[in-house]
Amino acid sequence: MTVEMDAQALEGFLAEAFPQVAGDFRIEEVEAERLVVRLITQGKHLRPGGTVSGPSMFALADVGIYLAVLARLGPVALAVTTNCSIDFMRKPEAGKDLIAEARLLKLGRVLAVGDVLIRSEGSDKVVARASLTYSIPPAGS
Amino acid sequence: MTVEMDAQALEGFLAEAFPQVAGDFRIEEVEAERLVVRLITQGKHLRPGGTVSGPSMFALADVGIYLAVLARLGPVALAVTTNCSIDFMRKPEAGKDLIAEARLLKLGRVLAVGDVLIRSEGSDKVVARASLTYSIPPAGS
Amino acid sequence: MTVEMDAQALEGFLAEAFPQVAGDFRIEEVEAERLVVRLITQGKHLRPGGTVSGPSMFALADVGIYLAVLARLGPVALAVTTNCSIDFMRKPEAGKDLIAEARLLKLGRVLAVGDVLIRSEGSDKVVARASLTYSIPPAGS
Amino acid sequence: MTVEMDAQALEGFLAEAFPQVAGDFRIEEVEAERLVVRLITQGKHLRPGGTVSGPSMFALADVGIYLAVLARLGPVALAVTTNCSIDFMRKPEAGKDLIAEARLLKLGRVLAVGDVLIRSEGSDKVVARASLTYSIPPAGS
Repeated sequence: MTVEMDAQALEGFLAEAFPQVAGDFRIEEVEAERLVVRLITQGKHLRPGGTVSGPSMFALADVGIYLAVLARLGPVALAVTTNCSIDFMRKPEAGKDLIAEARLLKLGRVLAVGDVLIRSEGSDKVVARASLTYSIPPAGS
Repeated sequence: MTVEMDAQALEGFLAEAFPQVAGDFRIEEVEAERLVVRLITQGKHLRPGGTVSGPSMFALADVGIYLAVLARLGPVALAVTTNCSIDFMRKPEAGKDLIAEARLLKLGRVLAVGDVLIRSEGSDKVVARASLTYSIPPAGS
Repeated sequence: MTVEMDAQALEGFLAEAFPQVAGDFRIEEVEAERLVVRLITQGKHLRPGGTVSGPSMFALADVGIYLAVLARLGPVALAVTTNCSIDFMRKPEAGKDLIAEARLLKLGRVLAVGDVLIRSEGSDKVVARASLTYSIPPAGS
Repeated sequence: MTVEMDAQALEGFLAEAFPQVAGDFRIEEVEAERLVVRLITQGKHLRPGGTVSGPSMFALADVGIYLAVLARLGPVALAVTTNCSIDFMRKPEAGKDLIAEARLLKLGRVLAVGDVLIRSEGSDKVVARASLTYSIPPAGS
């Protein structure tokens, strides 16, 4: 199991393919079955009270597994999320970035499955947990 | 089972409690166990190719059940999502609003559960399906 | 959209392919995008107190979508569940069969997605709600 | 965080509260936030081809989090599953027990959340992954 794209290559790909959101994320670690990505929390991600919104946490979990798949397969812009189950367990700390630790559990020919733990920076409490399935387009499509 | 807040009351509440996103949504129908809400699709919701992003569909499903709970309980700003499972089944049509039909399946003392079907306006194909659980704060909290 | 197998054909298939469990289920209605199946509740399905166990409700939801897929595709014994999200909302009534109403939301080339509402016979309260994804083997495999 | 019940106490509780299924499971490890439980695979758990059925894997994941909650709270027979999301990723190996590793991510006053990885004995490939939410009855009820 080799990594086809490192953090820099992944960030370059994100900037080109998803320019609207690429600046929200910073990739911290890339391994064959594990990837850590940070949400650089900004005003647009917040709800009243300063806590990060649910959709922003969903987006972070989603990008985490997407990047973990890309890291292994190389640039496959067309991989699409088919399912996400997410549990919101604690309120994120106000004014902190969120750190998502993504784990690739299966990388099949057709489907990839992974899960994600999200924590506020500097805390070991899990704020949210998600599992996601990605559908991988046939090679050459 | 009576409706405590109608479409106008719900939109007023949303505008006050969530000013950042209230303008994205328009409430179309409110019944005791069913609510229809529209995502007024804008540039910020789109991915390359003009299709609505996953996080935007998550946000729409989330607000759909939130509003369905509020419609029954009255303004309970503190109700929080504890779980969402969402299936993305088809690509939304470019340039169309999304219409979410939320169904309240349980409104208990502690938890509310509902599901949502999302379609592109004018189409009967289901683009995404979600189920959500909300935790309801104890009265007086 | 035509139905390839009716209730009798589906029950015959189940009896042959899954003899251990086929007797637990009776198919009540078959349409192109909707199927109703009954769990004939027996001692082995019960928990103390006489309520149907979670795994038995999971099995009922699972067979509901499986049969809804078969009804459309004909006998595809190899279709496999890849994901299930299930919400348990109320205690089933003791001593009653369970009725599952399955709805096929997508029948693609590779994946099928549907959801299921489970009620105790004679009640309109939803006991459990599930959504399932099935992976469909390529034709000829 | 202390463990209130060890493996022996948990097995004793299971035998008394759930005599129909207690013999299917053997508890291997108990820690404050982690529990390992084995499904002693028998004919009743199998599908044609000798692979463990989906409902049996659901039951294993479900009991894993239930026991992890009990280990911390002591005997709370009334804790009930409110949600499970499960991904089936690979076929279990025929003729092998299944080993479930449960992880408690949140143990709140009202809800507990955990996830589970299931593997065939002696393999490091994940066969299934599940996340579950349990509702905890108020003390004294």
